[in-house]
Amino acid sequence: MKEILQKLMNGEISSEEAEKMLKTMQIRELEDFAKIDTGRDVRTGVPEAIFAEGKDDDELVKIVLGFADKGHVIVTRLEKDRYSLIKDELKVLEDQGLELDYNERARIMVVRDHEIEKNGKIGIITAGTSDIPVAEEARIIAEEAGCEVLTSYDVGVAGIHRLFGHIRRMLEKDVKVIIVVAGMEGALPSVVAGLVDVPVVGVPTSVGYGVGEGGFTALYAMLQSCAPGIAVMNIDNGFGAGVFAVTIVKQICKP
Amino acid sequence: MKEILQKLMNGEISSEEAEKMLKTMQIRELEDFAKIDTGRDVRTGVPEAIFAEGKDDDELVKIVLGFADKGHVIVTRLEKDRYSLIKDELKVLEDQGLELDYNERARIMVVRDHEIEKNGKIGIITAGTSDIPVAEEARIIAEEAGCEVLTSYDVGVAGIHRLFGHIRRMLEKDVKVIIVVAGMEGALPSVVAGLVDVPVVGVPTSVGYGVGEGGFTALYAMLQSCAPGIAVMNIDNGFGAGVFAVTIVKQICKP
Amino acid sequence: MKEILQKLMNGEISSEEAEKMLKTMQIRELEDFAKIDTGRDVRTGVPEAIFAEGKDDDELVKIVLGFADKGHVIVTRLEKDRYSLIKDELKVLEDQGLELDYNERARIMVVRDHEIEKNGKIGIITAGTSDIPVAEEARIIAEEAGCEVLTSYDVGVAGIHRLFGHIRRMLEKDVKVIIVVAGMEGALPSVVAGLVDVPVVGVPTSVGYGVGEGGFTALYAMLQSCAPGIAVMNIDNGFGAGVFAVTIVKQICKP
Amino acid sequence: MKEILQKLMNGEISSEEAEKMLKTMQIRELEDFAKIDTGRDVRTGVPEAIFAEGKDDDELVKIVLGFADKGHVIVTRLEKDRYSLIKDELKVLEDQGLELDYNERARIMVVRDHEIEKNGKIGIITAGTSDIPVAEEARIIAEEAGCEVLTSYDVGVAGIHRLFGHIRRMLEKDVKVIIVVAGMEGALPSVVAGLVDVPVVGVPTSVGYGVGEGGFTALYAMLQSCAPGIAVMNIDNGFGAGVFAVTIVKQICKP
Amino acid sequence: MKEILQKLMNGEISSEEAEKMLKTMQIRELEDFAKIDTGRDVRTGVPEAIFAEGKDDDELVKIVLGFADKGHVIVTRLEKDRYSLIKDELKVLEDQGLELDYNERARIMVVRDHEIEKNGKIGIITAGTSDIPVAEEARIIAEEAGCEVLTSYDVGVAGIHRLFGHIRRMLEKDVKVIIVVAGMEGALPSVVAGLVDVPVVGVPTSVGYGVGEGGFTALYAMLQSCAPGIAVMNIDNGFGAGVFAVTIVKQICKP
Amino acid sequence: MKEILQKLMNGEISSEEAEKMLKTMQIRELEDFAKIDTGRDVRTGVPEAIFAEGKDDDELVKIVLGFADKGHVIVTRLEKDRYSLIKDELKVLEDQGLELDYNERARIMVVRDHEIEKNGKIGIITAGTSDIPVAEEARIIAEEAGCEVLTSYDVGVAGIHRLFGHIRRMLEKDVKVIIVVAGMEGALPSVVAGLVDVPVVGVPTSVGYGVGEGGFTALYAMLQSCAPGIAVMNIDNGFGAGVFAVTIVKQICKP
Amino acid sequence: MKEILQKLMNGEISSEEAEKMLKTMQIRELEDFAKIDTGRDVRTGVPEAIFAEGKDDDELVKIVLGFADKGHVIVTRLEKDRYSLIKDELKVLEDQGLELDYNERARIMVVRDHEIEKNGKIGIITAGTSDIPVAEEARIIAEEAGCEVLTSYDVGVAGIHRLFGHIRRMLEKDVKVIIVVAGMEGALPSVVAGLVDVPVVGVPTSVGYGVGEGGFTALYAMLQSCAPGIAVMNIDNGFGAGVFAVTIVKQICKP
Amino acid sequence: MKEILQKLMNGEISSEEAEKMLKTMQIRELEDFAKIDTGRDVRTGVPEAIFAEGKDDDELVKIVLGFADKGHVIVTRLEKDRYSLIKDELKVLEDQGLELDYNERARIMVVRDHEIEKNGKIGIITAGTSDIPVAEEARIIAEEAGCEVLTSYDVGVAGIHRLFGHIRRMLEKDVKVIIVVAGMEGALPSVVAGLVDVPVVGVPTSVGYGVGEGGFTALYAMLQSCAPGIAVMNIDNGFGAGVFAVTIVKQICKP
Repeated sequence: MKEILQKLMNGEISSEEAEKMLKTMQIRELEDFAKIDTGRDVRTGVPEAIFAEGKDDDELVKIVLGFADKGHVIVTRLEKDRYSLIKDELKVLEDQGLELDYNERARIMVVRDHEIEKNGKIGIITAGTSDIPVAEEARIIAEEAGCEVLTSYDVGVAGIHRLFGHIRRMLEKDVKVIIVVAGMEGALPSVVAGLVDVPVVGVPTSVGYGVGEGGFTALYAMLQSCAPGIAVMNIDNGFGAGVFAVTIVKQICKP
Repeated sequence: MKEILQKLMNGEISSEEAEKMLKTMQIRELEDFAKIDTGRDVRTGVPEAIFAEGKDDDELVKIVLGFADKGHVIVTRLEKDRYSLIKDELKVLEDQGLELDYNERARIMVVRDHEIEKNGKIGIITAGTSDIPVAEEARIIAEEAGCEVLTSYDVGVAGIHRLFGHIRRMLEKDVKVIIVVAGMEGALPSVVAGLVDVPVVGVPTSVGYGVGEGGFTALYAMLQSCAPGIAVMNIDNGFGAGVFAVTIVKQICKP
Repeated sequence: MKEILQKLMNGEISSEEAEKMLKTMQIRELEDFAKIDTGRDVRTGVPEAIFAEGKDDDELVKIVLGFADKGHVIVTRLEKDRYSLIKDELKVLEDQGLELDYNERARIMVVRDHEIEKNGKIGIITAGTSDIPVAEEARIIAEEAGCEVLTSYDVGVAGIHRLFGHIRRMLEKDVKVIIVVAGMEGALPSVVAGLVDVPVVGVPTSVGYGVGEGGFTALYAMLQSCAPGIAVMNIDNGFGAGVFAVTIVKQICKP
Repeated sequence: MKEILQKLMNGEISSEEAEKMLKTMQIRELEDFAKIDTGRDVRTGVPEAIFAEGKDDDELVKIVLGFADKGHVIVTRLEKDRYSLIKDELKVLEDQGLELDYNERARIMVVRDHEIEKNGKIGIITAGTSDIPVAEEARIIAEEAGCEVLTSYDVGVAGIHRLFGHIRRMLEKDVKVIIVVAGMEGALPSVVAGLVDVPVVGVPTSVGYGVGEGGFTALYAMLQSCAPGIAVMNIDNGFGAGVFAVTIVKQICKP
Repeated sequence: MKEILQKLMNGEISSEEAEKMLKTMQIRELEDFAKIDTGRDVRTGVPEAIFAEGKDDDELVKIVLGFADKGHVIVTRLEKDRYSLIKDELKVLEDQGLELDYNERARIMVVRDHEIEKNGKIGIITAGTSDIPVAEEARIIAEEAGCEVLTSYDVGVAGIHRLFGHIRRMLEKDVKVIIVVAGMEGALPSVVAGLVDVPVVGVPTSVGYGVGEGGFTALYAMLQSCAPGIAVMNIDNGFGAGVFAVTIVKQICKP
Repeated sequence: MKEILQKLMNGEISSEEAEKMLKTMQIRELEDFAKIDTGRDVRTGVPEAIFAEGKDDDELVKIVLGFADKGHVIVTRLEKDRYSLIKDELKVLEDQGLELDYNERARIMVVRDHEIEKNGKIGIITAGTSDIPVAEEARIIAEEAGCEVLTSYDVGVAGIHRLFGHIRRMLEKDVKVIIVVAGMEGALPSVVAGLVDVPVVGVPTSVGYGVGEGGFTALYAMLQSCAPGIAVMNIDNGFGAGVFAVTIVKQICKP
Repeated sequence: MKEILQKLMNGEISSEEAEKMLKTMQIRELEDFAKIDTGRDVRTGVPEAIFAEGKDDDELVKIVLGFADKGHVIVTRLEKDRYSLIKDELKVLEDQGLELDYNERARIMVVRDHEIEKNGKIGIITAGTSDIPVAEEARIIAEEAGCEVLTSYDVGVAGIHRLFGHIRRMLEKDVKVIIVVAGMEGALPSVVAGLVDVPVVGVPTSVGYGVGEGGFTALYAMLQSCAPGIAVMNIDNGFGAGVFAVTIVKQICKP
Repeated sequence: MKEILQKLMNGEISSEEAEKMLKTMQIRELEDFAKIDTGRDVRTGVPEAIFAEGKDDDELVKIVLGFADKGHVIVTRLEKDRYSLIKDELKVLEDQGLELDYNERARIMVVRDHEIEKNGKIGIITAGTSDIPVAEEARIIAEEAGCEVLTSYDVGVAGIHRLFGHIRRMLEKDVKVIIVVAGMEGALPSVVAGLVDVPVVGVPTSVGYGVGEGGFTALYAMLQSCAPGIAVMNIDNGFGAGVFAVTIVKQICKP
């Protein structure tokens, strides 16, 4: 703005020209204004993420290639079969020096052009083995966003004695938040939250049958926990749990 | 039948009369046949029970008085206010030598003409204090049916350390079945069933709010428990839980 | 502990060594404490069970082989196609002298190294022919856990006259508990529970269409039965019904 | 029409007048056309019915008085308290020679100016005592529409032996349709439909608690009955069941 | 019985023998008693029906062959593919002189050994073309049970003008009951019931999407119709609607 | 801006002062920017509206008085009892020359300081009398926003012949949109939309019982209508229907 | 009519013949009456539409060919695979000079014999890329019915800054109505409706998972929007949204 | 332990006495073990909390007095009427030097014996005024646990321009977590989470009607947000949100 005013005072531009230039500048600032608070992902370190479900293969490839210049992209809910179909078309990224990682259990593909430095710890616990894919999704997101992750899988409440050691180990290693992934009756977060004083994030999974089919029983049980202070994600939303945990850790452990 | 045939052979009755008498006898037997397997309540010792909700005061008094000659009647879901309104009309029962007991928390009125002898033990646990009315309903039914009951109230999973001692005490006292009453997320039966080898009966309660309102979250959590072998009752059905527990105990501990 | 104290008094170990040894011992005991009440399965005789759904073939084989040294393992919800795929990899168990049984209707594979001795009787009734797979699941679990099972399949309420004889036969053979498996409107347990005085366990199945699809109509009908004292399992949970029935029978009929 | 044409030919009216008169006539006929098939209520004998719920007292009185000249009006879902409040304002009807009947259990008020002749029989059965108000609603509608009604109340499936006699009595008296009213698990229509060959109409009631609250369990059980050929009404819809039964009976037993 | 008594009086048998013979006879009668009211299908003319869904091909063939001596069997919900697979195995029936009919739209196979005489009329209307399979199921059941059926397909409320003629035609032909089959918003039965005075039976179908998926919107709309006196079947239950309509017609139009 | 630049060029203010003044101006414009598109209510003529439910009386009075200087305020969902309690406190508005109107059926209070000029017509139809309060809410909002409203109440599908005349009258009077308010099975909008070519807006009401309780049956029926092109509001949302209709009419009939 | 009367007066026909002719004429008019208000589609310009789902290929081809003489037909919900299967059979239409268009994303096939003139603008916005097929369905219907469409796809609330420009552009181009298509939490219509004063039509999509699966979360959010005046379509109902928008635009922008 | 061993070595106690003493000590430690990880509340600073709903007045007073020696107790969901009834009985606490605070909007009573030092900031935003009680509950819990709270109430998405300033102010003041409380369509957390990089905790409220009644629409919208990384609490669970936010802040801002 200074420049414009200077030019005006210098007689380099007319009052009309100055007004127009200021207006144009202003519009650009207006747009910036709306954008200004949206650099969230950059600051938290969570890379651009693409949800593969509901997009066809062509769309998906196009979007991934489009985002590639950001240097760090995640594709979630990408089944192995689909990955096999599109990976050849993505080889061009490797030629550009980008690294491609695919994790089958988590159904995640990562594209990155740099090593991720890790900072601050997150614990992830699952009740059963079938809950692991959701937990792995959370783990990868958290690691790609620069957090260290400790996992204890398959330690449900039906055999509660196995749980104590795992919880203690996590607390000793100073995790800042614990993600608890559980399907079926979703009781595990209640028990964990009764034992620790770090934030507990519950992730219900669609593991179950009969009344438990679809994951609503686990979801509701976590929301209605008698242990206060459990925050809950959508069913099978490992991705969201990872992002949420990162927003906590990043505030404590700024690099 | 022998008699009839004898009379026929003695010529006291004609063949036609015999046929008619046999047919009449037969019809009575047919009716008995359908009834024969229904002496269930008598054998298990569960007294006649009347569900007060949905019946108006006049109907209720009439039904209670009508059943009074059975010597042992239970009225369930009888709010204190209603009890106050009808108790004068029931005084006539006391004149007949029957004893009247009203338990406010369990909302149960008992009419009985004899001491109940107790035999065989049932354990009842609740997660919170608000679950106690349902537990008390189960307790009274079980005691009136002749079982001894051990209770541990308010020992939910959020403070799991309190639970262990209570469970152990019950097992040491040799309970044959444990009724676990819980609202909210209904996780307690899962934890208990992971610790004991007697049958565990879950009773969800309507204690909860938001997603837990009405008791469906607790109900579903118990049905979908990761601990196998929990059998579940309808929401707030302390009565049914008591009856079911009695059917188990009565087979083991026959007087 | 005595030994340690003895050694201390004998001067074989120092006070510090004694303290350390006692602490180590104590930690081991602490862990035992948490585990002590969890020998449930062993005592009830129910073998280790693995739920095949939601695990991929590799995981499943690995878990089965891992449990094989227990000498008695059950795999539930194992579709025939999957069984065909993995059975070759499990042949190594037969070389180890273990017996492998697969029941197609019940979708159960059993691995065992000994004959199962049977003790105490359980009745299982189904309303329709489509309910049989769930009933068979219950039957096999109960038999593997050492109970004798009497079955009457396809005796629903629409033709109530067929039911009486089956019920009577079971009572005469002295079953200790009756499992009633029904889909559709789930009315059968209500009728059965009105006729017998042994515990009745209802298992709703997902057999039905329209409003009955998924089994909720049957589930709710059993929970809301006008016959008091029916305990209910999750939809299609034949496994749980079997385990629960065993916990009842094992208390009555201790070997 | 003949008349108009005649007048035209007689020269009493002009061609224009004839055209206009024919058009007017036509419009009236058009309106009649749409109405012609709607004399249903008249032909079936079901009197005009007013649903009291959701109308305030003033509206209700006004509507009843407005319909009074039809000589036969029913007000349904009229609670006793409301009836007490409005009955004075309706006294004017009695001055007009109309008879006013109020049935508290059925919550129905009938206004009529003639005796109802009865023709053809309907059976009504209820599972419990709390289902009686709904049954009574059906009974009064059927009787007001000129059918004879046989009732058997409180004969549920938990004590199935009581049911047989009632069913047989109805069949012997030649009922043309049986209305079965049941709450809780709603199993009674299934059992009845398995025993008779007249049409069975199920009416679920909102009698129940927990999963049965609101009557959906009973409704779904009736819709999903394993006995084919049960037709079902909305929850607590005794009125509709009565009307439907009347449409059947009126075809068979035309006066 | 007379015989036995006679023999006793003749001295041909002893009193003990007579007692035993009478008891045996009695037991047989007891069983008859329970069965006596179950000849429903026979009297209504509805042939034995087998629900193909949920039964595997082997079971199905076995059951059909087992019922073949009844001379009239229906298999419902039999997809064309399955029919193709089993029809060869059923050829043996044709060798026995039985006729085999398969209707692809209705997914019904009929086995019969005689011509069906028809008596009394039923009307069937559908709202759309997608509702036709359910309507056809009802039509075939009704025709096999000896009723004449008039159909008007694809006459929904969105083009209400097409409806009037169809309704009139049915009334003129003197149908005794109208089955209205509709998915989507299920409004058609309400409109039809407002126009006729014969019983209207609503059959909701699972035709719809979004909120209408599964057929619950149509089901609820029919149950909650503002036109009183519509009785409703389960979603897609053309079979039940046919059976129910037959029970009405058979009372009016006895052969 | 011109002024500022002029002053700068005139030397009345320094370059720094100009920059600061421009920035301040800019911030004000930024805020205007966000607000600029929100003058919706003003342009459509819908007055400020306050939802009374969920606010206590004190809050409500404070908010109404606070908005009074806008000259036109509506309070919706204001029960008569509450209105009686607060109207004295609002008398001060009348002293300020504002007019206060309360409509009991619509549960709406209007505060206004000017006559409303009307322009463009809206039709409102209800299926039953109990739907009228919701219709009246829509009517008042539309009239206050400057539209003329034609109403036809109580013309449901069960007596479809009454409907035709009403529809025709509305079309002849050139309504631009028809709001159809219906509870129960919600079929009326489907029928209306099949007859007209102006936009049809469906408003489901909570009028109903059993499966229709709460209004979901009517809502779903409207959403799933077989007549394409019905747009639907939330249950009982007469207010929203009025606002939406106004947005249509205001575009056509600009004053 | 005049003619007939004239002939009568001329003696060309008898009074009886006149009566008969008038009646015949009348019946034809009666049928016309019912049809008269149903020319909706013609007047709004929406071509005849066929819903492909639930119809088999043969039916579909037959229906399309049957409608071809209307010169303008749309087939919706036609998957590419099905289109490929039937397109050869439809070639005959091209021989008749009709144009065939298939849009894969919208799953729509259009048959038309004339250019569509466009008149009046509609805006369509989607929250995500997965919502585009539904938006495209709406776009094609609107275009075929003669409206111009402006689209802005993938501008959801999570990045709200992108939204402003798109809204402004549409308003500047003078759209008469904005269709907002959104799945997931369905928040976009609320935000848009807060910014504009043209009618906003919300179309929820079934894009989502967990609690959002099936589209109910988006549907409910739109119905319950805090921005008044959003009208809502069934889940995924792009077709209906297009038709509804057209009915609005056609009233404003008559050709 | 050292002591005991020392005494043993000193001969002050026998080996048997030592063993017994060690065992007793061990049992105490065992109990400590289970308790050791449960000091959560103490460490986070959240005072003991009592849920008033579902407890009668006598119970409540007894529990509060029992906890009073902890010096800091909160009673939640305590309606003003109930508070008025019990406050006299709690006066004894004031005599003991404890301070009693009651907040009507938040329905919370606080008992404390010391000033609360505040440390670390939490932001709380509500969409509407009816959401404030839930927000206030969260605020008080957070303040009592030693956090500073910034609030912005009534800034919903329908007027999105008001939101920006509030968000910016909170970020500038360095809040560590933002709690967003919203009923209706629950869209606010999605918009906020798109603008900030601190953790966002959504609290749905039961504010709404029709489809929004009970708060499920808001709950599901938050769980299914298109902005990743929102964690959600049960409906109306302001208490839990406060506790959860505190667990985050306490890790960052340790006193």
